[in-house]
Amino acid sequence: MAEAHDTGKLLGVNKEFLPEFVYGGIDGSITTFAVVAGATGANLDIPVVIILGFANLIADGFSMSVGNFFSTKASLDSYDKNKNIEYWEIENKRETEIEEIRQIYRNKGFKGELLEQVVEVITSDKDVWVETMMKEELEMTKDRKSPYQTAGMTFFSFLLIGFIPLAAYVYALVFETSKQNLFIYACVLTGLAFCIIGVLKSMVNQKNAIRGIAETLFLGGIAAVLAYFAGAVLENLFR
Amino acid sequence: MAEAHDTGKLLGVNKEFLPEFVYGGIDGSITTFAVVAGATGANLDIPVVIILGFANLIADGFSMSVGNFFSTKASLDSYDKNKNIEYWEIENKRETEIEEIRQIYRNKGFKGELLEQVVEVITSDKDVWVETMMKEELEMTKDRKSPYQTAGMTFFSFLLIGFIPLAAYVYALVFETSKQNLFIYACVLTGLAFCIIGVLKSMVNQKNAIRGIAETLFLGGIAAVLAYFAGAVLENLFR
Repeated sequence: MAEAHDTGKLLGVNKEFLPEFVYGGIDGSITTFAVVAGATGANLDIPVVIILGFANLIADGFSMSVGNFFSTKASLDSYDKNKNIEYWEIENKRETEIEEIRQIYRNKGFKGELLEQVVEVITSDKDVWVETMMKEELEMTKDRKSPYQTAGMTFFSFLLIGFIPLAAYVYALVFETSKQNLFIYACVLTGLAFCIIGVLKSMVNQKNAIRGIAETLFLGGIAAVLAYFAGAVLENLFR
Repeated sequence: MAEAHDTGKLLGVNKEFLPEFVYGGIDGSITTFAVVAGATGANLDIPVVIILGFANLIADGFSMSVGNFFSTKASLDSYDKNKNIEYWEIENKRETEIEEIRQIYRNKGFKGELLEQVVEVITSDKDVWVETMMKEELEMTKDRKSPYQTAGMTFFSFLLIGFIPLAAYVYALVFETSKQNLFIYACVLTGLAFCIIGVLKSMVNQKNAIRGIAETLFLGGIAAVLAYFAGAVLENLFR
C-alpha cells in the first residue's frame, strides 16, 4: 500500500482549507434552508424567497467570516505572545529553561554525556531553543493559514454550499417550470449538500465515505429540523 | 516584567476555548441583531420579536456548533491520518525517513559524530521518531480540544452573547416599561457585545484593549449593517 501525505488540491481548492470549507458549508446550507422553510410556510412568492435567501446568505456569510477572521487571528496572536514569553524566559530564567530542555530530551531517550551535548547544542541558538520549547513544551506550531485566507474560504463555502437549498427556486424562476413541490426539492437538495460535505470530509481524511455522509446527514439533519421549526414559529406568527 | 504563559480561566471559562467563544459570540450577536432589525422594520409586537429571536438563536447556534464539531473533528482525523502514514513510512521507507531526521537535526545546528548519535537515539524508538516527524516535518501538534468541547463552547457563546441584542426587548416585556426606542437600545447593546468580545480578545492576547475593541466594532459593524439591510429587504417584501 503506497500512502502519501495529502497536501494537494481538491476541486481547485487547497485541502488545507477543508475545515473552513466544511464549517462554512454546513452553516450556509442550514441557514438558507431555514429561510426557505420559513418563506414556504408563509406562502411567499418565488422571487421573494430568492431575494430573502440571497440577502441572508450575504449577511450571515459575512458575519460568520468576521467571526472566523477574529478566531484565526486570536490563535496567531496567542502563538506570537507565547513565543515572546519564551524568549523572555530564556533570558531571565535561563537555568529553569535549560532544565526543561534536558527533561524534554531525557523523555526522548537521551541520557548521560550525549544528553548534555544535545542540551548544549539546542541552547546555543536562541531561535532553535525557543522553537523547541514551543513545539515540545507548549505543543504549539504556527498556523500557516492567514486570517484573510480562512475568512475568505469560509465566505466562499458559505455562499457556494448555501446556494444549494435555493437552487430549485432559482431554476423554477429562470426556466418558468412548475412551482409545485419546490420545498420538497429544497429538502432533497439540502440533503445532497450534506452528502457533498460528508464525501469531501472522507476524501481528505481517507476515512469511510459512508460514515462521513451518515455523520453529516445525522447532525445536519437535526440542525435542519430545528431550523424548520424556527421557520414554523415564524410562519404562525406572521399569519 | 514578570510574564507567564496564560493558561488560566477567565470568567470561569477555560481560556483555551477563547477562539470558539469569540467566533460563536460574534455570529450569535449579529444573527440576533438581524432578527431584531427585521422584526422592528415589520413593526412586530415585542413577544413576537422575542420568540423569533430565541428560535433563531437555538437553530442557528446549533447549526454553527455542528459545523464546528465537524471542523474540529476533521482536524483531529487529519492528524491521526498523517501519523499513521508516518508509521507506515518509517517501516517501508526507512532510509528516506532516517535522512529526514538527519536533515532536521542538521538544521538545528548538530553535525559530525554528535549528529549521527542523535539520529540513532531518535530512530531507535518508533514513537519518538514519528512524534519528531509530526512536529518538525509536518508542523502538526495534536489539538487537545475535543470536538464536543469546541462545539459546546460555540453553542454556549452563541446563546450568551447572542442574547444581548434581545435583552432590551425582554426587559421591556418583563418590567412592562416603555416600548419606545427599543431598537436603538438593541443597537447600543449589540455595540456593547462587540466591545466585550474585543476586550476578551485583548485580555487573553495581552494586546492593546482599544485596538481589540476598534477591530471588533469595525468588522462587526459592517456585518451588522449588512444584516440590517437584509432585514430591510425583508421588511419591504412583507409590506
